[in-house]
Amino acid sequence: MTNEAILPHPVLIGGQWRAARANGVFHAENPATGEALPGEYPVSSWEDCDAALGAAAEAAPLLRRAAPGAIAEFLTRYAERIEERAGEIVEMAHLETGLEKAPRLAGVELPRTTGQLRQAAAAAIDGSWALPVIDVRLDLRSRYEPIGPVLVLGPNNFPFAYNCVAGGDFAAAIAAGNPVIGKGHPSHPGTTCLMAREAALAARESGLPAGTVQMLCHVGNEDGLRMVADRRLAAVGFTGSRAAGLALKAAADAAGKPAFLEMSSLNPVVILPGALAERGAEIAGEFAASCLLACGQMCTKPGIVLLFAEAGLDRFIAAAKEKFEAAAVGPLLSAGVARSLRESVQTLREAGALVITGAGSIEGPGYRFPNTLLSVSGSQFLADPEKLQREAFGNAALFVIMDGVEEAAAILAHFDGNLTGGIYSDSVGADDGLYGRLAPLLRARVGRFLNDKMPTGVAVSPAMNHGGPFPATGHPGFTAVGIPAAMRRFAMLACYDNVRPGRLPAQLRDPGPQ
Amino acid sequence: MTNEAILPHPVLIGGQWRAARANGVFHAENPATGEALPGEYPVSSWEDCDAALGAAAEAAPLLRRAAPGAIAEFLTRYAERIEERAGEIVEMAHLETGLEKAPRLAGVELPRTTGQLRQAAAAAIDGSWALPVIDVRLDLRSRYEPIGPVLVLGPNNFPFAYNCVAGGDFAAAIAAGNPVIGKGHPSHPGTTCLMAREAALAARESGLPAGTVQMLCHVGNEDGLRMVADRRLAAVGFTGSRAAGLALKAAADAAGKPAFLEMSSLNPVVILPGALAERGAEIAGEFAASCLLACGQMCTKPGIVLLFAEAGLDRFIAAAKEKFEAAAVGPLLSAGVARSLRESVQTLREAGALVITGAGSIEGPGYRFPNTLLSVSGSQFLADPEKLQREAFGNAALFVIMDGVEEAAAILAHFDGNLTGGIYSDSVGADDGLYGRLAPLLRARVGRFLNDKMPTGVAVSPAMNHGGPFPATGHPGFTAVGIPAAMRRFAMLACYDNVRPGRLPAQLRDPGPQ
Repeated sequence: MTNEAILPHPVLIGGQWRAARANGVFHAENPATGEALPGEYPVSSWEDCDAALGAAAEAAPLLRRAAPGAIAEFLTRYAERIEERAGEIVEMAHLETGLEKAPRLAGVELPRTTGQLRQAAAAAIDGSWALPVIDVRLDLRSRYEPIGPVLVLGPNNFPFAYNCVAGGDFAAAIAAGNPVIGKGHPSHPGTTCLMAREAALAARESGLPAGTVQMLCHVGNEDGLRMVADRRLAAVGFTGSRAAGLALKAAADAAGKPAFLEMSSLNPVVILPGALAERGAEIAGEFAASCLLACGQMCTKPGIVLLFAEAGLDRFIAAAKEKFEAAAVGPLLSAGVARSLRESVQTLREAGALVITGAGSIEGPGYRFPNTLLSVSGSQFLADPEKLQREAFGNAALFVIMDGVEEAAAILAHFDGNLTGGIYSDSVGADDGLYGRLAPLLRARVGRFLNDKMPTGVAVSPAMNHGGPFPATGHPGFTAVGIPAAMRRFAMLACYDNVRPGRLPAQLRDPGPQ
Repeated sequence: MTNEAILPHPVLIGGQWRAARANGVFHAENPATGEALPGEYPVSSWEDCDAALGAAAEAAPLLRRAAPGAIAEFLTRYAERIEERAGEIVEMAHLETGLEKAPRLAGVELPRTTGQLRQAAAAAIDGSWALPVIDVRLDLRSRYEPIGPVLVLGPNNFPFAYNCVAGGDFAAAIAAGNPVIGKGHPSHPGTTCLMAREAALAARESGLPAGTVQMLCHVGNEDGLRMVADRRLAAVGFTGSRAAGLALKAAADAAGKPAFLEMSSLNPVVILPGALAERGAEIAGEFAASCLLACGQMCTKPGIVLLFAEAGLDRFIAAAKEKFEAAAVGPLLSAGVARSLRESVQTLREAGALVITGAGSIEGPGYRFPNTLLSVSGSQFLADPEKLQREAFGNAALFVIMDGVEEAAAILAHFDGNLTGGIYSDSVGADDGLYGRLAPLLRARVGRFLNDKMPTGVAVSPAMNHGGPFPATGHPGFTAVGIPAAMRRFAMLACYDNVRPGRLPAQLRDPGPQ
């Protein structure tokens, strides 16, 4: 055994792959089997974090002056490189996450990810994301400009589309002209390293500054918070658990620094009585498919369904139960996800939720939990709305059986902020009165409001809002998905007052003769 | 003496003027004389705060549905009403603040305030502030929508233009469709009450919900923070001291609520050697006029001037000193402002700043402090950059005498976020190299970047940015001045997915045939 063989994977700092100054090492697991995967990855020490901050800070003014074309070339070239190595990347992500190769990883998430990179490339060239405003009379000009080095922390459930060095936050931050320090999720380090390799090569090919992309496989909590507080860091993009998000938010808030956090969401769905009677079984099928997609490990999983105790209820519940029991039980992303799901279901049961199906435990290799449906009465929900809004990330959902519109309104008034919320109503107008009463209450508490549709499936469109009021995110004015709006998260408003014409950014110079 | 005579001024809640449930009372002072002014004003208890929150929460869904025309009518009618009572309002503000009646209050600030209200009215009707985006193919639509009840806390130095029930935050919040709870500044309660009276009448005339505008003359710190944390409140707009701003920010951050804070700013001005040699005396005159405007009590006062130890320096300093000594010493806004200014100058001196002129104390009625100029060497500044960035709100400024470009770059790198920053350079290009080196460093730390111009005078233009990186404000992506951008502070991003056409807001319906 040579020395080399036991060295953990290197980290990417300032355009160079270098041996990590590590506090420790970790390995990935195949969650479908529970077995360790080959490859040892470093938990970087503060020394690495410091070097990454230094490289990013050095790159920031250079990237600020880089031609939009060069940034676009990087993003495009990177997308191509990911596609060229798609087979290897998909295989690695499948092993590390247990998510199915097709259609999910290869057919949906990878194209979405490269599509995001290409949309970001186009937006960087187009420039309209910066919302330039020119007041010729007062010689006053404003636009959004790069904010500086951005720390991106990706989640476990989207190894490509939210990857810290390839996903939506990364694409938005780079396209807006900022260097990125990606902190990988420890569940899929191999996937992140494969992508970072292509990112580094694409950055070099495009002539971008060496410190455009940094990648650390993992860092300890304390060092992560220290990076957030560091003067060299400008902003944070995070997708993950509420606990981790709130810790980052506290550090960013104390430093007066923008942090864009996508945390937890129940994505309530209200099914009005007319819709229940008209097409309850059909809706139950839509619900089960949406809720169990990727074993329920979606930010927009419908986790709570509000139902009225009226005709069709029993049939709806029976249909949903049948679907949940018939559906295969996919592996969860990690031992931690399985443990947390079990605890959440336990919490919901302690708060009065009854089991329709599932809970308990399940045989089989790797990390799994039975497809689970719980139910609780509206009055029980109102007795402990906080506990009964506990997110159960994974293949579980809660039905709230409500007794009339006043109870429904009271429940909606107790809802925390969510990414999405939707209402199903009948096709002949019988539900319109209830809809009119409840829709404004739900609308005010969610980022994306739906009709007659389940919330999973976040289209990458300029009209998308993947955001919402706290605690779904840290600020209700921003979206994590959708170019160009997502780019403005990583920007500052910059005004030029009486600045000499030759010194103005080209975008803010006087318009030529029309 | 009747009972009535000793009742303090009522508060405005839910469209009604009612006797305050007060913890105590206070009165205003004439800062030019130090004498108490007639009129007793309540410090509202939590009972009043709770009632104001309740009224605002009740109004929020109604205002959300109000026709943009009705909101615009209110803002316009309110502007007219302020103009109709301009004489009385200006007289009261003059007594309470010591600011001169003309041109400042009557000729500049009052027209600016009514102008802002009218711009906000136009923006409410125009609707483009909401940045609507329609994706017909995916049936996905987004725009900014009202966020809900907004608490506005105004500062002492702009009794009209930043007044909690008439200023920029108020106009922006209302035009975006939100009810406002105005917490008056205790320095000018009479002015705020006069304006609130017109606001309430204009709201009634326009048919807006009763709780569109609430006004509390003052509340204790604890109750203020409790309002921020209250579930019924959606956002906060604040202009004032760093200490108060940070306390509000901590409460808002903990509750996951947007707070837009304009706090402190030194507004650095860099004078390059060529400009100093070419027109130093002229620039000294511009500096003195800008710095002493309104006795230095402007958010954008040039409080720190960076000068190179080169030809023309002594002449510049002598010219500035002469202007400072010749200028009348206006009254400060309050005893508190005078005390804080004295303390800040003392802190700067303790950190090594030397007195060019002023400091000490001054004879005369009311609250005054001598026009003060301090200086410090660049190396001394770098020895204690935190203390030497202490804001001295009022008629004082610090010169930093720098030894070469490297020292200048190091100083700029130590700067906190500021509202503005500017550079003067010569007209023949001798300063261009230095400018090229220093401008990017300063640009990154300020919201509004100027050339050859002092920072006071914040034009109300769509191209204005009155904002900047922390601690100048709480978030570098927003401006407090400038319609329509300022409105988006008090908005949430709202997406509609598959929502039936008849239920969509008119602004998001499919475009008709072109």
